[in-house]
Amino acid sequence: MSQTTTLSCRPIGTIRTPWQTPADCPRNGRQPDPAPVCRVQVLPEFHPGLASLDGFSHLILLYWMDRVAQPKLRFTPPFDDTERGVFATRAPFHPNPIGVSVVAFDGFAEPGVLNVRFLDCTDGTPLLDIKPYLPTTDAVPAASMGWLGRHATRNANTTT
Amino acid sequence: MSQTTTLSCRPIGTIRTPWQTPADCPRNGRQPDPAPVCRVQVLPEFHPGLASLDGFSHLILLYWMDRVAQPKLRFTPPFDDTERGVFATRAPFHPNPIGVSVVAFDGFAEPGVLNVRFLDCTDGTPLLDIKPYLPTTDAVPAASMGWLGRHATRNANTTT
Repeated sequence: MSQTTTLSCRPIGTIRTPWQTPADCPRNGRQPDPAPVCRVQVLPEFHPGLASLDGFSHLILLYWMDRVAQPKLRFTPPFDDTERGVFATRAPFHPNPIGVSVVAFDGFAEPGVLNVRFLDCTDGTPLLDIKPYLPTTDAVPAASMGWLGRHATRNANTTT
Repeated sequence: MSQTTTLSCRPIGTIRTPWQTPADCPRNGRQPDPAPVCRVQVLPEFHPGLASLDGFSHLILLYWMDRVAQPKLRFTPPFDDTERGVFATRAPFHPNPIGVSVVAFDGFAEPGVLNVRFLDCTDGTPLLDIKPYLPTTDAVPAASMGWLGRHATRNANTTT
């Protein structure tokens, strides 16, 4: 694999949220109280892949943060006074602008349209993937948060 | 955004694991006991983005599962008797073959090379992103696992 290899993704759908610009978005998806129900619209050709989602309380969504102008490897977060490496932040400036959110899955609004809570991305964000959230491999409640520990948000919405 | 939009990613590094083919890989990264220490080699141009990772016990890695020949929207898992939608599985056949793993971060082996545990991908997998794991938004220990609940692995490695 060369350093210039290009890997091509394609949208499998669109995320609908109440936030029209990055400046409108909450700091994280669990900060708004109540967390608004957002919609995940999956393109028809991918609907067969949605079978068996019933019964999962939470999902992992991957999406393409297409509203970010330019990646930055280092920057000073607005709530901090030290320059940080981008890989130690959840800011949208990563070299590959792929967002990851753990969301509560509230079922289908209609075929191919999922109701979810705890997103924090802009309206119209291209969806890349849906995965089931598995607490056996994805939940580490005691994980330590490095420099972000003292900035942790006191989220109104906790585990459900 | 059209349905044929192409979104381009590029590797930011390479993941080194003990598994040479998909058939060698464990069912999930917490199944092997002990979990081997794997290496994440970040390309030099991205090293500045690694500042401030110290103190995070866990990270989220995104990677490109380049050994998967063909996406499948439905398939019958080897441990199940029912056809499932791919978005209700963590199988590597998703339309965009982006893997997500929560790993324990054991520090740097050398500048730009991370020691991590709990990966389950093949050796040489292209790395797409590193994010800090935040239990405030990423940990949902009580999440329900739908059809996968009765197949949950009794992992040797639990939360650390």
